[in-house]
Amino acid sequence: MKKSRYRFIICSLSFGIGFFLGGKMLVNMINDYKFRMKRNFSNMLLFNDWLHFIYSGGDIEKYFMCYNYNKIIIYGNGYAGKILLEALSESEIEVVAIMDKKITSLDEKEGMIGINTKIPDADCIIVTPVFYYEEIYNELLKKTDIPIISIRNIIEKMEV
Amino acid sequence: MKKSRYRFIICSLSFGIGFFLGGKMLVNMINDYKFRMKRNFSNMLLFNDWLHFIYSGGDIEKYFMCYNYNKIIIYGNGYAGKILLEALSESEIEVVAIMDKKITSLDEKEGMIGINTKIPDADCIIVTPVFYYEEIYNELLKKTDIPIISIRNIIEKMEV
Repeated sequence: MKKSRYRFIICSLSFGIGFFLGGKMLVNMINDYKFRMKRNFSNMLLFNDWLHFIYSGGDIEKYFMCYNYNKIIIYGNGYAGKILLEALSESEIEVVAIMDKKITSLDEKEGMIGINTKIPDADCIIVTPVFYYEEIYNELLKKTDIPIISIRNIIEKMEV
Repeated sequence: MKKSRYRFIICSLSFGIGFFLGGKMLVNMINDYKFRMKRNFSNMLLFNDWLHFIYSGGDIEKYFMCYNYNKIIIYGNGYAGKILLEALSESEIEVVAIMDKKITSLDEKEGMIGINTKIPDADCIIVTPVFYYEEIYNELLKKTDIPIISIRNIIEKMEV
């Protein structure tokens, strides 16, 4: 009787440990997908609001002109950064540099800089990776005193 | 000796079963996050291409005029469906109905129909939930013979 109870406890413990470890192994995978799901949703919402902004008569150039930001730096060379560059390509606003953490000192060329390079002379920095805004903002704040603005703020502020 | 080997096998089996079940429990969760991550990415890409289309001089109204689609049905009352409706609000194109599977017969009102309602007279149906296009296309094909077009195709076709 004692032996079978002992065996039962050992088997249950083994099962429990196995159950816990099997689950734990997948938790990292879950967190990764969850994170990417949220990031994609955040970008999707930004673009959704950007389209709404355009179709309700918004003009992104006006924001910069309104605040007298004639020379700007775009932070982020991803989807949103490229769209912003395109949006300003025919405008009076000069994009003096695109800054991205993926740009290494070897990749740097005119107008493309990494995050360790001295920030060039500009009126403001527009942060385009909205999901990482806080983190990027805090990093940039240590390096510059020009205004650091999220692209989301521009889209929302200029809502017509 | 025999007894300890027997105990070892039983414990290993219990551990293995526990490991398998613990993992399996989380697989559904992983699949769900993965699915939503892909759907959000798909919508984000659509909106990204839509913005690129606009900033390179594209005009969505022209597509409909070009194909002589004057009266259209928008399938999908989500983000993309609402943006398309807004894009055409000041145009010559008449949106005769918005069709969505979430609209029940009780929610139906003028211009908002469910998927079981008779398809009203129109020149084409534009499917806006790009991630579910194939599925929706096959369902609509059983009910109508007017052109069924993905919003993605319009954005890509009109690339300037």
